[in-house]
Amino acid sequence: MLINEQMIDDIALGATVLGTGGGGDPYSGALMAKVALKNAIKPVEVIALEEVQDTWMTVPSSMIGAPTVSIEKINSESQMLVAFEAMEVALGETAAATFPIEIGGFNSLIPILVAAQKGIPVVDCDAMGRAFPEAQMVTFYLDGLPSAPNTLADEKGNVVTLHPIDGVWSERFARPITEEMGGSAAMCDYPMLGKNLKQSALGGTLTRAMKIGQAIRLANAKGENAVDAILDIVGGQRLITGKIVDIERTTAGGFVTGGVIIEKLNKAGTESMPTDVYVHFQNELLLAHSGSSAGDLNQDSVLASTPDLISILDHETGQPITTEQLRYGQRIDLIAYPCDPKWRTAKGIEVAGPRYFGYDVEYKTIEELAGEIQ
Amino acid sequence: MLINEQMIDDIALGATVLGTGGGGDPYSGALMAKVALKNAIKPVEVIALEEVQDTWMTVPSSMIGAPTVSIEKINSESQMLVAFEAMEVALGETAAATFPIEIGGFNSLIPILVAAQKGIPVVDCDAMGRAFPEAQMVTFYLDGLPSAPNTLADEKGNVVTLHPIDGVWSERFARPITEEMGGSAAMCDYPMLGKNLKQSALGGTLTRAMKIGQAIRLANAKGENAVDAILDIVGGQRLITGKIVDIERTTAGGFVTGGVIIEKLNKAGTESMPTDVYVHFQNELLLAHSGSSAGDLNQDSVLASTPDLISILDHETGQPITTEQLRYGQRIDLIAYPCDPKWRTAKGIEVAGPRYFGYDVEYKTIEELAGEIQ
Repeated sequence: MLINEQMIDDIALGATVLGTGGGGDPYSGALMAKVALKNAIKPVEVIALEEVQDTWMTVPSSMIGAPTVSIEKINSESQMLVAFEAMEVALGETAAATFPIEIGGFNSLIPILVAAQKGIPVVDCDAMGRAFPEAQMVTFYLDGLPSAPNTLADEKGNVVTLHPIDGVWSERFARPITEEMGGSAAMCDYPMLGKNLKQSALGGTLTRAMKIGQAIRLANAKGENAVDAILDIVGGQRLITGKIVDIERTTAGGFVTGGVIIEKLNKAGTESMPTDVYVHFQNELLLAHSGSSAGDLNQDSVLASTPDLISILDHETGQPITTEQLRYGQRIDLIAYPCDPKWRTAKGIEVAGPRYFGYDVEYKTIEELAGEIQ
Repeated sequence: MLINEQMIDDIALGATVLGTGGGGDPYSGALMAKVALKNAIKPVEVIALEEVQDTWMTVPSSMIGAPTVSIEKINSESQMLVAFEAMEVALGETAAATFPIEIGGFNSLIPILVAAQKGIPVVDCDAMGRAFPEAQMVTFYLDGLPSAPNTLADEKGNVVTLHPIDGVWSERFARPITEEMGGSAAMCDYPMLGKNLKQSALGGTLTRAMKIGQAIRLANAKGENAVDAILDIVGGQRLITGKIVDIERTTAGGFVTGGVIIEKLNKAGTESMPTDVYVHFQNELLLAHSGSSAGDLNQDSVLASTPDLISILDHETGQPITTEQLRYGQRIDLIAYPCDPKWRTAKGIEVAGPRYFGYDVEYKTIEELAGEIQ
């Protein structure tokens, strides 16, 4: 499948839904991908995970850092390429393909940029099926694949190559380096042979994002409900239809951390919903519970939690709203839907479940929680 | 000149004087160097700077981090070798010689360890003529030589390779990585050809340390005054002969920062000395002024300041006391003596003068200040 501008827009839109509030600004990502596509050395092809050859060296392309910073900071077009080629130097071989490490607005489009510049295909997969805030929160880490080497590059020309002993050390080094690089950086980690990629990556996630984007676009064109169209694809449910009444947000340690308070709208269909919902985020939306403050969190108030996906969508258009776009007064639908089964294993919950992020509650699947509510 | 155990002890002692309170624990450094010497693949030779061939690749060996941490943390014997060999990989060539980046207790001995393990000579030189707390405070930076690449290694097996755009960026990246590595790390930076080393390094500094150590040892053996023996070599003066009455110390950001208050002893020869002296440190002793608190600092109260050297010596034995060994009640001589002329240039003062460290005073040489006092 050859990528065109419409597909880039659809991926940007859909990946922002699956990006659960994070993954970077989709619109600047789409712009960069389109410019790269125009100047591509050959058409950019998206290939299925099954098409990857066992012996190929594959390298993901992504940006790391707080999404609020990535919007304000001008990323150089060559920055990602510098990190990618530093990886090729560290490996002593060239990459046959690239892919997104996560499905988030900006980060799902960056591989298209690299593919266009290098003349290599993008693999239709990622290592999260969503966006997560830390570098070790990838299926590759769950499967025990080595993170090393890692490369980071900034727009000033600084390049750092890490050989961490595991993915947790990768995160420990990459985060302060990203801070020094100005809050966001191009990063490559988990280079691997096609054989390993096929075993560990989540296939079809890039085209899943594209289908969601397409569904939003078509629903709006036809005057249909775009939120319903999204739920048809992702299989989740509305937690609340409401208005944003407060946002708490701090940018520190390379993250945007905070919470958003949503008050129910008086509308048909909202009768069974809670009056207020509080959503916690760390770049991504991580946990939603009933109540109007962070202190209302307890095992019984939880409505949805990481690793399941939580997205905030514009109530009228279904447009996803990233954490940095959240504003007082926005009318939204808060939806939650299942993560990939890999995240529901004991290891998956340990790595990206609520307790890892400091929420003292047990993980229950969105399906379980929906059952309890009914 | 072939290194023996006595020379290691003399270097440890003398380098701790020139280390101006920092440079890491000399005794664990001496121990590691002696063990390495016993297991050396061939005798370890110290060669003069002039003997270095223009085409040799030379790589310094050093530890980075807060000295208090390097005492408490067990450094693996192979850690320095890992950083050194990561540098050879980054350069794509083997190193023909190593050398100390600074003359400080631990850091002047680490090259002997590497030399023993690699079978290469140690060059009798360094890039400070003393110890300084930050990675860009080297003559190589003053001379515009590139810092990149840099390598860091911890005792757990983590390795980081930096390609910073200059020495200041090297410091900006290396410091938080060192923090993550547990507060101290093996580091190689400023790899260079022999041609550049001969132009920019300060020659003879390792043997200068050895001569100072030897002088202390011999003075004590003969019952002579060791502080006088040191001053005969370094050409400085006693600022105060006194007792340590307070120490303020915090370990943060990869540094040990604080101050020490010294009260004059009532002894013959101390008549012209101030009643109290306050010495500021950041790993190394950086500025001494009359008065009993940090607030007494002003242009007129300064007695000696970075880049000139300040050392605290045991009053009876002339044994140097590092910042982490400072204790209430110690009877000491505080001495100050001239730095290398390279540090007295406009660039040298900008990089390592008092204002860089946040002291709002103009740099005056110890000779100027001594003239004002008389």
